[in-house]
Amino acid sequence: MTHDLQRKHELYEKYVKNMTLEDKIGQLLQLAAPFFEGADDGEITGPMEELGIGPETARLAGSALGLSGAEKVIAVQQAHLAQDKHGIPLLFMADIVHGFKTIYPIPLAIGCSWNPELAKRSAQAAAREAAVSGVHVTFAPMVDLVRDPRWGRVMESTGEDPYLNSVFARAFVDGFQGGDLKNDMERVASCVKHFAAYGLAEGGRDYNTVDLSERQLREYYLPSYKAAIDAGCEMVMTSFNTVDGIPASGSRKLMRGILREEWGFDGVLISDWAAIREMIAHGAAEDDRDAAFKAIQSGVDIEMMTPCYVHHLPGLVREGLVDEALIDEAVLRILCLKDKLGLFENPYRGADPAKEEAIICCEEHMEVSRRLAEESCVLLKNNGVLPLGKKQKVALIGPFGDSGDILGFWSWQGSKETAVKLAAAMQATSESPELVTAAQGCGIHNISEEQLADAVRIAEDADVLVLALGEESEMSGEAGSRSDIRLPEAQLKLIGRLKELGKPMAAVLFNGRPLDLHGVYDIADAVLEAWFPGSQGGAALANLLYGNVNPSGKLSMSFPYTTGQIPVYYNHFNTGRPKPAEPTDNRYISQYLDIPNEPLLPFGFGLSYTEFAYDGLKLMADTMSPDSPLEIRATVTNKGAVAGTETVQLYVRDVSGEVVRPVKELKDFIRIELQAGESREISFTLSESQLRYHHSDLSIGSDPGEFRIYVGPDSRNTLEAAFHLLAQV
Amino acid sequence: MTHDLQRKHELYEKYVKNMTLEDKIGQLLQLAAPFFEGADDGEITGPMEELGIGPETARLAGSALGLSGAEKVIAVQQAHLAQDKHGIPLLFMADIVHGFKTIYPIPLAIGCSWNPELAKRSAQAAAREAAVSGVHVTFAPMVDLVRDPRWGRVMESTGEDPYLNSVFARAFVDGFQGGDLKNDMERVASCVKHFAAYGLAEGGRDYNTVDLSERQLREYYLPSYKAAIDAGCEMVMTSFNTVDGIPASGSRKLMRGILREEWGFDGVLISDWAAIREMIAHGAAEDDRDAAFKAIQSGVDIEMMTPCYVHHLPGLVREGLVDEALIDEAVLRILCLKDKLGLFENPYRGADPAKEEAIICCEEHMEVSRRLAEESCVLLKNNGVLPLGKKQKVALIGPFGDSGDILGFWSWQGSKETAVKLAAAMQATSESPELVTAAQGCGIHNISEEQLADAVRIAEDADVLVLALGEESEMSGEAGSRSDIRLPEAQLKLIGRLKELGKPMAAVLFNGRPLDLHGVYDIADAVLEAWFPGSQGGAALANLLYGNVNPSGKLSMSFPYTTGQIPVYYNHFNTGRPKPAEPTDNRYISQYLDIPNEPLLPFGFGLSYTEFAYDGLKLMADTMSPDSPLEIRATVTNKGAVAGTETVQLYVRDVSGEVVRPVKELKDFIRIELQAGESREISFTLSESQLRYHHSDLSIGSDPGEFRIYVGPDSRNTLEAAFHLLAQV
Repeated sequence: MTHDLQRKHELYEKYVKNMTLEDKIGQLLQLAAPFFEGADDGEITGPMEELGIGPETARLAGSALGLSGAEKVIAVQQAHLAQDKHGIPLLFMADIVHGFKTIYPIPLAIGCSWNPELAKRSAQAAAREAAVSGVHVTFAPMVDLVRDPRWGRVMESTGEDPYLNSVFARAFVDGFQGGDLKNDMERVASCVKHFAAYGLAEGGRDYNTVDLSERQLREYYLPSYKAAIDAGCEMVMTSFNTVDGIPASGSRKLMRGILREEWGFDGVLISDWAAIREMIAHGAAEDDRDAAFKAIQSGVDIEMMTPCYVHHLPGLVREGLVDEALIDEAVLRILCLKDKLGLFENPYRGADPAKEEAIICCEEHMEVSRRLAEESCVLLKNNGVLPLGKKQKVALIGPFGDSGDILGFWSWQGSKETAVKLAAAMQATSESPELVTAAQGCGIHNISEEQLADAVRIAEDADVLVLALGEESEMSGEAGSRSDIRLPEAQLKLIGRLKELGKPMAAVLFNGRPLDLHGVYDIADAVLEAWFPGSQGGAALANLLYGNVNPSGKLSMSFPYTTGQIPVYYNHFNTGRPKPAEPTDNRYISQYLDIPNEPLLPFGFGLSYTEFAYDGLKLMADTMSPDSPLEIRATVTNKGAVAGTETVQLYVRDVSGEVVRPVKELKDFIRIELQAGESREISFTLSESQLRYHHSDLSIGSDPGEFRIYVGPDSRNTLEAAFHLLAQV
Repeated sequence: MTHDLQRKHELYEKYVKNMTLEDKIGQLLQLAAPFFEGADDGEITGPMEELGIGPETARLAGSALGLSGAEKVIAVQQAHLAQDKHGIPLLFMADIVHGFKTIYPIPLAIGCSWNPELAKRSAQAAAREAAVSGVHVTFAPMVDLVRDPRWGRVMESTGEDPYLNSVFARAFVDGFQGGDLKNDMERVASCVKHFAAYGLAEGGRDYNTVDLSERQLREYYLPSYKAAIDAGCEMVMTSFNTVDGIPASGSRKLMRGILREEWGFDGVLISDWAAIREMIAHGAAEDDRDAAFKAIQSGVDIEMMTPCYVHHLPGLVREGLVDEALIDEAVLRILCLKDKLGLFENPYRGADPAKEEAIICCEEHMEVSRRLAEESCVLLKNNGVLPLGKKQKVALIGPFGDSGDILGFWSWQGSKETAVKLAAAMQATSESPELVTAAQGCGIHNISEEQLADAVRIAEDADVLVLALGEESEMSGEAGSRSDIRLPEAQLKLIGRLKELGKPMAAVLFNGRPLDLHGVYDIADAVLEAWFPGSQGGAALANLLYGNVNPSGKLSMSFPYTTGQIPVYYNHFNTGRPKPAEPTDNRYISQYLDIPNEPLLPFGFGLSYTEFAYDGLKLMADTMSPDSPLEIRATVTNKGAVAGTETVQLYVRDVSGEVVRPVKELKDFIRIELQAGESREISFTLSESQLRYHHSDLSIGSDPGEFRIYVGPDSRNTLEAAFHLLAQV
């Protein structure tokens, strides 16, 4: 990631040295598409007045946000270069979160695939579509650890586990960036976000306060950002939240301290949208000038969409309050990124109308999308109603049966119109289209007697009911927090009414967060969690529902029992009075009086159309030492009648630490495909380095002593063994 | 609090020097009452086997837990002294949380009185009853800051505000201890709990993990413990939870660092029940020996109810792993406490059967209890149905109409049988007893058609309905966490059914936590929050319902809109995208899609039978400097027809800090009584020291700049002004 020093020097000599202070500070400004509309005729327009940014300033902006389309980007770049006295090209950045025009499942669903290789391919395909449309940088991956399903942005994360998040963080960065941004014009630079701990927004309310100990921050929240950076991620985005009382964009400790000094990150650091100015609302900056001062001191290079830098850094530098060297550093980092992307050689980079035509939504990308959706859906319950028989008469009922709103939030370029809808896909997969009839049953939030009557009519004529229910995509995503995470009342009413018919019933759920499934899980005979499955959602689901594909997804985030149980996550601590497995009369244990401690569905959980049995857990030694890793073996058998893919999960517990340690921590996993009846011994190798953690003094190390090993199909149902970690001799 | 050094030396010379290691470690052991049953005949029995404590060890125990009754205590002390070779008397400790036999309202209710003077009198009266029954130390006050109403122990706290909690912490300590424990035999020593931050148990599940930044810990959670200690509180109890990964009882940083070294606390530090051994379950100690080692190193003097110290400290000392000086220090602190209580002169201290007879449940104490209940109840809503007319026909319906379960958790010595019940009190207050008819309507959790029919029958014959609803006391208190904080379904059904009658309806609520009031607040014409009002509850409520007393209580904890809004508290931070007061189309603000950000009822809120108007907020200067406090004036007018008591609240906001600052912080309050039509100008004096807070480096100071002042009847509806804090010249 560190740029070649010689080249850096050249860029400095060639550009930075010759730029005025205003020119330099312009590079630190990022403006959105409306500022560049009409830019191809040499005019910069847009909502400049609102921000108090005049055309002269806007022309100095170093990067653009949310602009795409090869022709348009080329025109904007041409217009920009025609007037830029230094000949420094614009950088085009955009939110390519789970696909550009081909939309992949939402990241929370991708997390459920436990298939980083396929996730990487999706990122690569997304990068390809974006790159040929002129995009240079994507604001992805979002790797915030999430434990509160009220928060709408859990849909953007791969879930509640720091290890799994780190695995996916690397996969996404690799997929977006590839190995050679300068020459591979079909990749984009990746900007990991949101640094840091945005996922811990209090009450699950977006943008809300984050407070946690520094040790928890480092142990659970930071590893996934670090993994992205270690994978070579070129950019980092600050988060909206405070951490320990300071908005991230003004946190010297997080940005200059941890990110730059400790981790050695020398790439570009960008604020989230307006996050520098928002320090004022937070009450941590007095005004725009103070916000600019704090952000540049913290090492934030680019200010997104607010003018604190352009308006105030010149004065702050001239008055000697900000060292011009800070500005130079920031500019040079931005120029290095432009250089790494090859923009000085080819300012239009991948933008290519012909390629756009050929590549965007091509069959190959759609195939990746469909496969990823198939692997992301999670079968939560099945009393045998699934898979459907292709000769069965199916009544498909619910607002998502014939809906294109299956792309999820952050799919601004995706087309809901062309998304493969469930009804059509099921009709195509069934032996005959007439076997599948569809009725809306209700809207997302409303139900009419007429809708209900229609639904009952087709249901009465069917062998089996498939209910397509869920949240519309706007109910999650940014600023999409819900205090009540059940399905809307209208849909619960629909289920209840249809249940009365006594027909076999499967529910397919479209949603951007773990839900409280009361009223669904307890009623339906089968529940398939579809999340927002993307452009090929209907096709993937039809394949799963009819058994063309055997479900293999495993939850990347716990499904709480109810809202009142939040936060609930598998890698919690034990407390001093843990609830025993067996019922007890003892009141004085850590529990709720009215619900279990356990979530309804735990992290790692997911069913298949076959059954996998686990046995033969063996540790190849009773002890581990720092220089002798431990081999762990277990046998997994497909006891069912069909082939299936299983994700075998390895968890560890450090029984006694210098600080308390989670009851289980995911350390490794293996996806294996087993034919019906096939048995396989799998093997994990666990080393001392995987047992290290942050101690109370923030030092990282392992503690000798007893450890437990758990191997199983999810975080709850596991085989167990134990070993001793020996001290370093 | 620091004991006279000369006397300390004498105690050392006379006792500690002559004690064996086992004798000394015995002093560090506290056992519960069953260990001392039959002790008056020289036998120590009890559940010794369970703990692995033999009679020889139990005889060494330095203190007893939960024993009371003058005769019994005297007998146990006599038996003890008869066999104790050093002649060191036992200390008797007990949970006198909100009364001994006369029960006062639960502390959360007392917090709502905003009357620390009366709270102090209740503590004094409780101490008196306990002291004459032979108790020397009470495990109170509990001063944990609470923000999560799912947690059952919110009933023991005075609420969500650090300042209000500190005010009450001092009042309780003063009330329990008085000024001269040695000579005032009708006081007891106070043990503040639970150090530290127990109130932040994750998910509101008792005993659960606590994690927060050290700055938040110091700024919000620690001040109330500090206030108790500054008031001279003799003892501190550790909490069950971890703080930053370490169980409090094993936290050197909290106990030896903050409590002893920083704060200079030289009194006795006791573990909560079994909390030392529970470090093992937490996963922060390997075994009993390790737990003992960590606790003694942390400075915990007394181990409650587990034998880690008695079993392992002798060996740890002999092996040189624990310095015997640590044991000596702990013993000396315990002996100093015994000495301060005058036990060496009179080991029976206040224990006095004759006084027990005269004092316990005396009229004076009952009067304090009734008055405190009257001032603790909070009128949450009133459409004019209250006060009741004394000639009105009232149907009193609900499981709390004729229930003695109005004492609340932690009232082990209180009598539910003799508690004044609502039905009887209303009948006595009404013009004629026949005007008040009562029916149960439903149980706490169940409702039958017969109950409902009875209720409807008396309701149909009444002018007005009074519903007495709530949680039984076991639904809050220790280990009383609820995930769903609504009234039980049966009671909501009762309300709904009675509403259909179209009669005026008032609800009186008995509960140990803020509830989600949907189904009550939106339906009843009036809602009176009774909490658990104590021994005189019915009398106090009858006085309030009939207008003999005008309600004046103000909430000490916010009532959330729903469970899904938790945590919600008035002194939150603003975020970078605060929700504007006016409706907006902008999605991108910090909010829930489905509920407001504001709680249903805010901190400080409470209605009266009269109306208070606020105006004329004046700051007597535009600026404040460190050496010139600011005077703030406002006029409060009783616009109604009856006299009433109002608590005028002063809040401050630091608009821009080095770290983010709460949108409002309570800084002062005044309770005033105003006759009908009376107007009064009240005055507050605010000084720079009240504006100090913990900065990011944990230093304490104020930041010059803009501040806002709010004065009003609650934390939401306030007059507003502004001033500038000038820098120190």
